[in-house]
Amino acid sequence: MTMNLFTRLDHVAIAVHDADEAASYFRDVLGLAIIGDEIADAPGVRLVYLDAGNTFIQLVAPVRDDAPVAQWLRENQEGLHHICFASTDLRHCEKYLNPGSTSGIFKAGQGASAFFMTREPNNVKIEVTGPTVG
Amino acid sequence: MTMNLFTRLDHVAIAVHDADEAASYFRDVLGLAIIGDEIADAPGVRLVYLDAGNTFIQLVAPVRDDAPVAQWLRENQEGLHHICFASTDLRHCEKYLNPGSTSGIFKAGQGASAFFMTREPNNVKIEVTGPTVG
Repeated sequence: MTMNLFTRLDHVAIAVHDADEAASYFRDVLGLAIIGDEIADAPGVRLVYLDAGNTFIQLVAPVRDDAPVAQWLRENQEGLHHICFASTDLRHCEKYLNPGSTSGIFKAGQGASAFFMTREPNNVKIEVTGPTVG
Repeated sequence: MTMNLFTRLDHVAIAVHDADEAASYFRDVLGLAIIGDEIADAPGVRLVYLDAGNTFIQLVAPVRDDAPVAQWLRENQEGLHHICFASTDLRHCEKYLNPGSTSGIFKAGQGASAFFMTREPNNVKIEVTGPTVG
């Protein structure tokens, strides 16, 4: 049942104030290529994707004061924010992981859909991304 | 020069108080297989490795009060602790990333060696792992 719930780690997200400055460091010093740079309207963030070879590093910067990550950055320093696993069946995954909750699936980056787990095991925010079915 | 500094993301580390409890959740609920469980003496930690398909989730629990992660857990909640990239040339990588520092290469988990970057971009602790040369 739980085997193969996730197929891979899609990305590790870092919350930052200035996406340009952070992206320059990760590209120019750490040598990671920038492969995406977009605005996700629903969560109110700019997302810069860096290619780490087998997965992505995602820089998340708020574009609105009411974005959840803007609130997070008022309460925390910049830093590791969440991890995101990929699933082939997002709705099944959400029902299993967030039982009894109304769907929180939203339009995420890279043309995908995603939701966040309501439980944060060991204080780790976990996102699950995948194609939205139906 | 900086291209291909890293070959992949080796793991994402989560600092926890109780490795058994955390490992059970990640295995039984999230379906990630445990593929390693060992003590790393130098940093004074127990490391549990979970297979995420393309990379590992590493649970880090202190086994000594003077372990750096024990200090970290006194100052922070459990949670995302560091990310670790893999390199094919650890000494070159350390000289480039930590210029002027004495070597901080230590025996890490999975039979590998590793060092931590002295700079923590956007407050992200970054480890680099690889085979130790010479």
